[in-house]
Amino acid sequence: MSTSVLSPADLLAHWQGLRALSRRVIEAFPEDQLFTFSVGGMRPMGVLAAEMLGIAVPMVKEIVGGGAQEFSENKAASKADLLAQWDAATAELNEWFARIPAHRFGETVTLFGQYTGTVWSQLFYAIDNENHHRGQGYVYLRALGIEPPPFWERGEASALAS
Amino acid sequence: MSTSVLSPADLLAHWQGLRALSRRVIEAFPEDQLFTFSVGGMRPMGVLAAEMLGIAVPMVKEIVGGGAQEFSENKAASKADLLAQWDAATAELNEWFARIPAHRFGETVTLFGQYTGTVWSQLFYAIDNENHHRGQGYVYLRALGIEPPPFWERGEASALAS
Repeated sequence: MSTSVLSPADLLAHWQGLRALSRRVIEAFPEDQLFTFSVGGMRPMGVLAAEMLGIAVPMVKEIVGGGAQEFSENKAASKADLLAQWDAATAELNEWFARIPAHRFGETVTLFGQYTGTVWSQLFYAIDNENHHRGQGYVYLRALGIEPPPFWERGEASALAS
Repeated sequence: MSTSVLSPADLLAHWQGLRALSRRVIEAFPEDQLFTFSVGGMRPMGVLAAEMLGIAVPMVKEIVGGGAQEFSENKAASKADLLAQWDAATAELNEWFARIPAHRFGETVTLFGQYTGTVWSQLFYAIDNENHHRGQGYVYLRALGIEPPPFWERGEASALAS
């Protein structure tokens, strides 16, 4: 790669901005709908968010060399528990992502024992997948008559600000 | 930016892989539901796809210097028309994206007369937005009892292969 689209720090900041949006979507769900409501037999938002948690930090840890991670959807017992897990992952992601050596983004790796691709493509998969499922959460919110947070609104997770 | 996450060619290939998936989602809709069916009062998939078309090529053209583009959602009269517009945009995107000088990805630009950010972040917005809305299309398909294409399946748009 002779030219640069963005730096590792840019990519991390972009992802964390999107993760802050995902957090706001989780927050927008009423407690009693977060783990139960869905459309068309799909997984509820709380389960989709658990999948996001099961990918992000474990993926980056394995890239850094923390050994093979087994993919598992985190379990959350409540909305508060899920948000606490989310905030813990936000801090862990900052810590572990910064430990990816810059020269490794183009390196091909196998993660979770089965997915092979370049480091950047693995990270993009995680981000694309989060956008995909968060978008589904928007439909659930609309179907519940709840206005979702604006898609273009990013920035810091609200946990520390509120 | 001293380090590189991925090259411009990598980013284009990644986007086109996702666009091929979007095309398969459009294809999966019955003609009579593509522009009418929705959940929770949201826009139908055909209208979301028109938004994607209204962003991708016009954005890249404006980045390259084709002058200010006005954002407008393309109109499509039918599924066949929408798919033909999609395929035309696939070719145009390849042509125009290749004309973005490598040093410009970190440059700040204002597009569509109002959105200011680095070139890379503008492109990522377009890709994130496409993932967001395509994910909504998955909910519509499931609500219609139709199995959507696998999210992890990418590759070339099927137009040329089929």
